Amino acid sequence: MDFLKEDFLLNTEAARQIYGYAEKMPIIDYHCHLSPKEIYEDKVFENITELWLGGDHYKWRLMRAAGVDEKYITGNADDHEKFLAWAGAAGNAIGNPLLEWSHLELKRYFGIDDFLNEVSAEKIWETANKRIKDLSARRLIADSNVEVICTTDDPIDDLKYHKLMSEDDTMPCKVYPAWRPDKAVDIEKATWAEYIDKLADVAEMKIETLDDLMAALVKRLEYFNDNLCCISDHGLAHVPFSDITEDEAAEIFRKRRAGEALTEDEIEGYKFFVLRFLGREYNRLGWVMQLHYGVKRDNSERLFKSIGSDAGGDSIGDAASSAKLADFLNALDRTDELPKTIIYSLNPTDNTAIETIMACFQKGPTVSKLQHGSAWWFNDNFDGMTDHLKSLAAQGYLRGFVGMLTDSRSFLSYARHEYFRRVLARLVGEWVEDGRYPNDDVALKELMEGICYRNAKNYFNFK
Amino acid sequence: MDFLKEDFLLNTEAARQIYGYAEKMPIIDYHCHLSPKEIYEDKVFENITELWLGGDHYKWRLMRAAGVDEKYITGNADDHEKFLAWAGAAGNAIGNPLLEWSHLELKRYFGIDDFLNEVSAEKIWETANKRIKDLSARRLIADSNVEVICTTDDPIDDLKYHKLMSEDDTMPCKVYPAWRPDKAVDIEKATWAEYIDKLADVAEMKIETLDDLMAALVKRLEYFNDNLCCISDHGLAHVPFSDITEDEAAEIFRKRRAGEALTEDEIEGYKFFVLRFLGREYNRLGWVMQLHYGVKRDNSERLFKSIGSDAGGDSIGDAASSAKLADFLNALDRTDELPKTIIYSLNPTDNTAIETIMACFQKGPTVSKLQHGSAWWFNDNFDGMTDHLKSLAAQGYLRGFVGMLTDSRSFLSYARHEYFRRVLARLVGEWVEDGRYPNDDVALKELMEGICYRNAKNYFNFK
Amino acid sequence: MDFLKEDFLLNTEAARQIYGYAEKMPIIDYHCHLSPKEIYEDKVFENITELWLGGDHYKWRLMRAAGVDEKYITGNADDHEKFLAWAGAAGNAIGNPLLEWSHLELKRYFGIDDFLNEVSAEKIWETANKRIKDLSARRLIADSNVEVICTTDDPIDDLKYHKLMSEDDTMPCKVYPAWRPDKAVDIEKATWAEYIDKLADVAEMKIETLDDLMAALVKRLEYFNDNLCCISDHGLAHVPFSDITEDEAAEIFRKRRAGEALTEDEIEGYKFFVLRFLGREYNRLGWVMQLHYGVKRDNSERLFKSIGSDAGGDSIGDAASSAKLADFLNALDRTDELPKTIIYSLNPTDNTAIETIMACFQKGPTVSKLQHGSAWWFNDNFDGMTDHLKSLAAQGYLRGFVGMLTDSRSFLSYARHEYFRRVLARLVGEWVEDGRYPNDDVALKELMEGICYRNAKNYFNFK
Repeated sequence: MDFLKEDFLLNTEAARQIYGYAEKMPIIDYHCHLSPKEIYEDKVFENITELWLGGDHYKWRLMRAAGVDEKYITGNADDHEKFLAWAGAAGNAIGNPLLEWSHLELKRYFGIDDFLNEVSAEKIWETANKRIKDLSARRLIADSNVEVICTTDDPIDDLKYHKLMSEDDTMPCKVYPAWRPDKAVDIEKATWAEYIDKLADVAEMKIETLDDLMAALVKRLEYFNDNLCCISDHGLAHVPFSDITEDEAAEIFRKRRAGEALTEDEIEGYKFFVLRFLGREYNRLGWVMQLHYGVKRDNSERLFKSIGSDAGGDSIGDAASSAKLADFLNALDRTDELPKTIIYSLNPTDNTAIETIMACFQKGPTVSKLQHGSAWWFNDNFDGMTDHLKSLAAQGYLRGFVGMLTDSRSFLSYARHEYFRRVLARLVGEWVEDGRYPNDDVALKELMEGICYRNAKNYFNFK
Repeated sequence: MDFLKEDFLLNTEAARQIYGYAEKMPIIDYHCHLSPKEIYEDKVFENITELWLGGDHYKWRLMRAAGVDEKYITGNADDHEKFLAWAGAAGNAIGNPLLEWSHLELKRYFGIDDFLNEVSAEKIWETANKRIKDLSARRLIADSNVEVICTTDDPIDDLKYHKLMSEDDTMPCKVYPAWRPDKAVDIEKATWAEYIDKLADVAEMKIETLDDLMAALVKRLEYFNDNLCCISDHGLAHVPFSDITEDEAAEIFRKRRAGEALTEDEIEGYKFFVLRFLGREYNRLGWVMQLHYGVKRDNSERLFKSIGSDAGGDSIGDAASSAKLADFLNALDRTDELPKTIIYSLNPTDNTAIETIMACFQKGPTVSKLQHGSAWWFNDNFDGMTDHLKSLAAQGYLRGFVGMLTDSRSFLSYARHEYFRRVLARLVGEWVEDGRYPNDDVALKELMEGICYRNAKNYFNFK
Repeated sequence: MDFLKEDFLLNTEAARQIYGYAEKMPIIDYHCHLSPKEIYEDKVFENITELWLGGDHYKWRLMRAAGVDEKYITGNADDHEKFLAWAGAAGNAIGNPLLEWSHLELKRYFGIDDFLNEVSAEKIWETANKRIKDLSARRLIADSNVEVICTTDDPIDDLKYHKLMSEDDTMPCKVYPAWRPDKAVDIEKATWAEYIDKLADVAEMKIETLDDLMAALVKRLEYFNDNLCCISDHGLAHVPFSDITEDEAAEIFRKRRAGEALTEDEIEGYKFFVLRFLGREYNRLGWVMQLHYGVKRDNSERLFKSIGSDAGGDSIGDAASSAKLADFLNALDRTDELPKTIIYSLNPTDNTAIETIMACFQKGPTVSKLQHGSAWWFNDNFDGMTDHLKSLAAQGYLRGFVGMLTDSRSFLSYARHEYFRRVLARLVGEWVEDGRYPNDDVALKELMEGICYRNAKNYFNFK
């Protein structure tokens, strides 16, 4: 089999047949970090370096590991030089998803079949930059057959571009906001107090007590809901749990507002309290709750000071306790206020535990009310995806899985959906070849169409 | 390869040959939760729902994940309705062991080759129920070529049915009791005090001190031993370790008997002390000690309140420390009182650590005195079994492995032994094909017969 | 495919082609436990038992698991009896790397093709012992195409044999010392005080304060550096981290010198302080720092008392926190004093976290300045190696990997390099077959030659 050819990753006859069911499905990208402004304004990129390397800390990390000087990564080298540096690293990155993604992107969007390395870099730079003017944000979205995009938005965001897009007949897809209130939750951060003030302004009220905070959040939740939001998202080191009372949480809030220091237990208690409160609200509104955790951020002070966050200095954390995840879900479930929830841990050793915890809280009529989110970030690669799909299938109900998302800042990342669909088809094909599932066209078509499109459509219930 | 055909899972010529060595071996099911009463009385089932769904929380979890209403799972729907609901979930459960087990059971015991789904459900319901009258408990055992069954019994059990069976010439297999004293160990539970009273009654003595408790346990151990018991079992969140003294343990016992609250350290200390005491007794009696841990039970208060324990609300726990396991084993080994021990963690990320810990305490003449129990509960599936076998082989001595057990409440679960044997044959076949072991008929036959039958026979030393 | 034949492990045409690029590369064994004295004196072995079983606790563990009596392992049985006992265990150890290693060693060094088991043992014993006189230490090294060996040496070692070898024109390879200062770091051990006294003697100064200790260590570092050392190594339960100040560390040192007991926090603080100090020194000298951690040693008091350390009583530990590893690396990186570093955890569940942490600190111009060391000790087997290579490739830059080392006490262990190269070729071959990398002769040749030889040569910068 040659590099990235038609049958890429499809190693059995069954896989090739099964992939056919997935290939043409529209994309529902229910979690990403695209800019609503760039989508609305139909952003056009200067050159392939801007498109590929601007802000993509996945690629920066690979370049650093390949020994590239920071000048050619985030430094003051020009875009052409940076592209050459990237080409050298990428072409040698055997086994790394960036190599496969980059080439799929070249092939699908730029029509370039050449292998990227130091030799071919110059030619690819020229060809790609000639074509890039046609590859605007909306064009890439349309060409990728995207039906829905959910961005990631702060509660204080005015959702200006979402409003504009909802009234724009020329949009190639629906773009919904998603609610990400980390700044209100992260009480231990220096920026928390200032953020609460901003939230008060936007909510047009004072926030002096925990009750005020909850009221302000509800105002903003309703505002997001009115703007067709139906998904929330949380970025956490771990899912918190505590037996805190409301009075205790209120006192912690008061202390922090008064500038007093908090203990670790108080931080945990506050976070749990606010998260449970929000979970109940999501349930009331019929939203989906996404929990992303297991991250240790900004490990390198050097990178953080010179570049800031999202500089490539994050890693898998090992502070997350599966026990707390179970107890957190129970804290919502016990009063029947657990919303639909998607769980993502950055630590792949949590996979099996997550499956077994989810199963404790599944409840009809929603199919797979709790979801184990697709292999996330560092795990978004061949083995990471395969392992996730296997454990989800073995412990749960793969048939109900809402499938792939890009979690990306790049308009080219829809190629990852293709990658996911091929990995999925390969795995299902192996099961069929092994006699573990019948080679039944109807059932396999439903399975693939479900995971690649329909399950998400049914689960999120977009307005 | 078609679904569940003759060569199911056997993907090489070597595997097919090797499976032949295992296929006809009798079954020694050294750990299960079958009811001695049902075996003795040769229980006949009303219909396939009673047989399949009554008490099987594995299936309940899958149905919930598939969005089935609880009414059709543990609720008041009738058995026919429940079966239809199960059929819909099962047929779609690609990659889940329940799909493969269920179809193996239909095929092997009911002679039904149809694929179970919403379409075929009605026909299978009728066919299965016609045949079910012939499938009594003893008939299923006999048809499965079962030589030994070890049940799971409380120290206060009178073993009435075991006695009856030991004198019954018509029994298709030997049925031994196994000693599971969790209720005496779990000092933190509300039910502990009451249980100690019951134990005192049964042992016909007062239990006022730790010494009394130990004396009562010894009485019951001897009673079990007289009734041919040679296996114990413990269900634990984690294997405890402490440097507690006997005086300290006695004082903790006194406090708890007096109704005082215990600290976490005291609970840990007591459990360690009692477990070490029991381990020494097992060693004295020549019994095998089984340690099952790594579970977090009853996560969902909702399920627990409405259904009770074993409702499908359990998950993998992450509280178990491998270090404590090593120190616990050493606490017995240092005085040469470590019994033969089988270790099962529900958390598959413990696998490699367990192998490396066991190897520290192996000691002839017993072959593989310490055993890593077959992939347990949530891990009892294709990948879970394969991973377990690989790590056991790479770090230890697969040749000495005592093999599969059902751990089941169902008389149909002997199909899991077939599944295990196929997985094992497949793996060994791959090794042979890869040139990692000679294709030597004699050695491979001994290997397969050993793991599937003879090793257990030699290891447990049934009376 | 037959046992250990020419194409052993090479399951695709691509793999066979790719292995050809690796096969003839010289070996740089940058971390082992060979005796400099034995190399210098060109040690000749009495018989194959001395060569195979003397000190090899890997084999001892397997024999114990196979039920062999300790008499035939470390006891007073004669070498012939021990060999027979080993043969019985080894031949049955399907799936265990010792079986494959042992047979590769018989084949490559002794020219013996027979399969080792109870039947063949006698003949192999005779044949091997006939040939063993020719298989001296240097002959084995020369026949294995070894270019560089780095031993493992204590700071107080006089490096006498290294000096002799550096002046010996007949040496088949370069032999460099490596600096392993565990005894100065392990302040909690009973032997620490005595060791500090010895260090003072060797450094020809008094060590009364922490400053003295650092000065003495610098003296010895310079001595090692003058003797061509360029690699350090640390054996740790976990990589420590603390926010300790120099004054606090000095006070801890003083307390311990005065015979006072230390708290866990003080031990952690001291270890962190000394490790950071040494890391800075390694960086100044241009050395590589190796961190080996995740071990729980001497679990069995019985083995420790009867045989001592390295008796087969060690296991994977679970006390190591990935978070501390990240913080430790940052403590060196923040002042730009992080040396080239190779990270090895004995716990394979740390693999992915390690990859993601390393990537935070990569920095050109060194290619892969941080390295995830080859699958270590209990993980040095088919699946362990494969998993390590996959996670390194997926999260990092496999192309820059410094590759295999033996970590061995045996002159036969170079066969493990062959094993590694086959596993690597197999994996890369699978990727090529799956269309995940082009079948490009030049790139694949560079990849294999790099990982198997050139990367190490460039990275370590031997003098």
